[in-house]
Amino acid sequence: MTEVEAAKKSQESLQDRLAQVVELLHRHKFAEDLAQRQEGDGPDRTFIDDLDQRQNLAELQLRLDELHPADVAHILEALPLDDRLTVWQMVRADRDGDILLEVSDAVRETLIADMDDHELLAAAREMDADELADLAPELPRDVVHELMESLDAQQRERVRSALSYEEDQVGALMDFEMVTIRDDVSLEVVLRYLRRLKELPGHTDKLFVVDYDGVLKGVLPIKRLLVNDPDKQVAEVMANDPVAFHPDENAYDAAQAFERYDLVSSPVVDKNGKLIGRLTIDQMVDLIREESESEVLNMAGLREEEDIFASVWKSVGNRWAWLAINLVTAFIASRVIGLFEGSIERLVALAALMPIVAGIGGNSGNQTITMIVRAMALDQVGTNNTARLLRKELGVSLINGLVWGGVIGGVAWFLYDSWSLGVVMTAAMTLNLLLAALMGVLIPMTLARLGRDPAMGASVMITAMTDSGGFFIFLGLASLFLL
Amino acid sequence: MTEVEAAKKSQESLQDRLAQVVELLHRHKFAEDLAQRQEGDGPDRTFIDDLDQRQNLAELQLRLDELHPADVAHILEALPLDDRLTVWQMVRADRDGDILLEVSDAVRETLIADMDDHELLAAAREMDADELADLAPELPRDVVHELMESLDAQQRERVRSALSYEEDQVGALMDFEMVTIRDDVSLEVVLRYLRRLKELPGHTDKLFVVDYDGVLKGVLPIKRLLVNDPDKQVAEVMANDPVAFHPDENAYDAAQAFERYDLVSSPVVDKNGKLIGRLTIDQMVDLIREESESEVLNMAGLREEEDIFASVWKSVGNRWAWLAINLVTAFIASRVIGLFEGSIERLVALAALMPIVAGIGGNSGNQTITMIVRAMALDQVGTNNTARLLRKELGVSLINGLVWGGVIGGVAWFLYDSWSLGVVMTAAMTLNLLLAALMGVLIPMTLARLGRDPAMGASVMITAMTDSGGFFIFLGLASLFLL
Repeated sequence: MTEVEAAKKSQESLQDRLAQVVELLHRHKFAEDLAQRQEGDGPDRTFIDDLDQRQNLAELQLRLDELHPADVAHILEALPLDDRLTVWQMVRADRDGDILLEVSDAVRETLIADMDDHELLAAAREMDADELADLAPELPRDVVHELMESLDAQQRERVRSALSYEEDQVGALMDFEMVTIRDDVSLEVVLRYLRRLKELPGHTDKLFVVDYDGVLKGVLPIKRLLVNDPDKQVAEVMANDPVAFHPDENAYDAAQAFERYDLVSSPVVDKNGKLIGRLTIDQMVDLIREESESEVLNMAGLREEEDIFASVWKSVGNRWAWLAINLVTAFIASRVIGLFEGSIERLVALAALMPIVAGIGGNSGNQTITMIVRAMALDQVGTNNTARLLRKELGVSLINGLVWGGVIGGVAWFLYDSWSLGVVMTAAMTLNLLLAALMGVLIPMTLARLGRDPAMGASVMITAMTDSGGFFIFLGLASLFLL
Repeated sequence: MTEVEAAKKSQESLQDRLAQVVELLHRHKFAEDLAQRQEGDGPDRTFIDDLDQRQNLAELQLRLDELHPADVAHILEALPLDDRLTVWQMVRADRDGDILLEVSDAVRETLIADMDDHELLAAAREMDADELADLAPELPRDVVHELMESLDAQQRERVRSALSYEEDQVGALMDFEMVTIRDDVSLEVVLRYLRRLKELPGHTDKLFVVDYDGVLKGVLPIKRLLVNDPDKQVAEVMANDPVAFHPDENAYDAAQAFERYDLVSSPVVDKNGKLIGRLTIDQMVDLIREESESEVLNMAGLREEEDIFASVWKSVGNRWAWLAINLVTAFIASRVIGLFEGSIERLVALAALMPIVAGIGGNSGNQTITMIVRAMALDQVGTNNTARLLRKELGVSLINGLVWGGVIGGVAWFLYDSWSLGVVMTAAMTLNLLLAALMGVLIPMTLARLGRDPAMGASVMITAMTDSGGFFIFLGLASLFLL
């Protein structure tokens, strides 16, 4: 089945396909259970069950064979661990490698744990150097060793080089499937050369023009190859000054360049301008997806993408750090209230009203920080326009504080029959919203200036500020003016 | 400057380029100010200032002309309104259209407001039908009318059809730049045909094979065109059963298919299988980016992407709805506390401890809901595995409740010298975390079942539950067992 035909299947919804596999799986399991229970019930029945059983299995296997590796990966991700491993064992061995490359890291770990060294070696043997490098950190040491032994010198060098880069560098994402040509031949010669290759790598929208030392001189977009006179020389038609990346550049910057300039593939060159690999849009799309996911997860205080069917203990591990930090910040907020226990004893309405001040502050602060973090991710704000942004956010907070603080102040007045309590409420709301705006701008800016990820736990931090701050402002004002 | 060469400029960081433009802009403004103040100061000085002024302007304009439209768009987005409009007026008129198509909706609005009908017409006249349809909803009525008049029948029909689809449907995103061929010709003929076209549309990785009625029969990937013998017929080489989309399909599903199957372009066909347009990866990347952005913004309770330099009033408008909802939920939580004012008066420690119970619950609930919303966006969970997920999340909460609740219960015991207060604290924490897990799973599942966006205000809703719930559980338990 070709790539294009496999993709055709995308027309059925993913959920449908998942449901089909689950149904076949459960029928298979049910039959297995039955067979076990009926063992020794007479040869006829067992024979029939056996037949049924084998039919179910065959159908399930057929279904899996038809699916694109990306779809099998999706199904594996959406299955609980026991079902996942049952399906994984039914996947044809020669497809193991493709599927391992498609699943998420968390799920890949569970699949690899279920394979023996022999199976792992077989799966990895089909892979390109860049794919091997992707997988290597998660494989057992001796498997990696044996794999490296089996590679030729060039491949081994490529795997080593890909492994030498950080996960977020261009070098870790590039592949090595480049079609290179010289600039002193005619397009006709290029066309004949391509025909001899029999197959072109995926996402080949341009050929790379190099000199005899492998230095990149330009690129020949396939579009130009097709529309120009075949008698023309490559040098006449190629783009001389193509966008090229360095392997130690930040991969996310490269992804933004792909997005911005609508690129499909792009060469990667070393310091001397020598062509060493290429980036393609499919890897960049995955990266864009991962980046925005990790932003969402980071803001909520989750360490990383979680296998939703991970064991309870794994999930606890993924989440405990921010919960512990939150515990400390909540404890601080609690001690702030503790300072004013005398005031609360004398006016218990304060206890009921204080969470409103803190809560609205937290909500407003989260809106501000979310917007700033996004704008920073898109490079729209740097530390240079902090003052301007701050003025705007403070303005928004002032209006919201006076309007909504006024409303809730009015309600407090009505409920507790005390206009001064209402005024304190309005004032405290306004001040806490101003604090939320201030912190919503300053926290991510400060994190960025310290070289940290501005999204990291942003939500937990801003809430900590607006809770402690809100309690302090409200109870402090109340103690000063009401008691 | 070609696409590829312009992209080369991406090597300089975006922030650098922005800084350069801002510097030139401020020098220009400063000179303008000076010139105004020195008016009538003798002819010599004015002449020199004038020269300076013109040089600055020329340099700024040159810099802008060099930049890729996407980069100019980025700079416009990152500038405050007054600077933005100054730069916008300096952009060459023939580039207005390209840049308008690149900027975000919020910023586009500010630019269009600054243009007269004549300028708008000129900018729009260069556009393709799909681009016009993108822009039309934001243009003044009479401009759209005049534009439509100026189009030929086919173009007008295309704009109309693109406008008839919802923003999130495939039909609204497709373009019409398809290269179509017949299946009964040789590859040689196809190659000659392409040469006659002089130029191919961007992202042409396949040609569309249609019959005499325009019905899609297959696609010919450029890769196959290049490696196969030119004497072969198109029918022998083409992929017969390509992935194709319908114009009323959900665009986000199409984007996921592009991501999953690494597509670059894909045909769009109507109900009768007639080719009516195509989708390309660049639009899909933009969509993936937008989707994940709106997820982040929705969770924080922001209505839509906000121009970070929007006026204070605009920002208030974008944010007020969720703040108002939050005000109501905070008020409810406050009334819950109000129920227990008698208890708090007798044991004021309750007031200091209750926000801890509520806060940790909110944090934990946000972790759960973030994870579930993500998994739902990736189609990994449906309403069918709710029970399983719920069991897992409840397990995580139980452990966290006993461990962290135990810690904070110990601290409460130590602080207030009451072991029974400590026990109540631990029990309340555990129960509130269980509530957070329950709601974190059920809220997005319920929203999905009701056909709503599960991310919508997820954070505000879960916090509302854990606040009111936390106060009720803690104060209720305390009233029962401590007083």
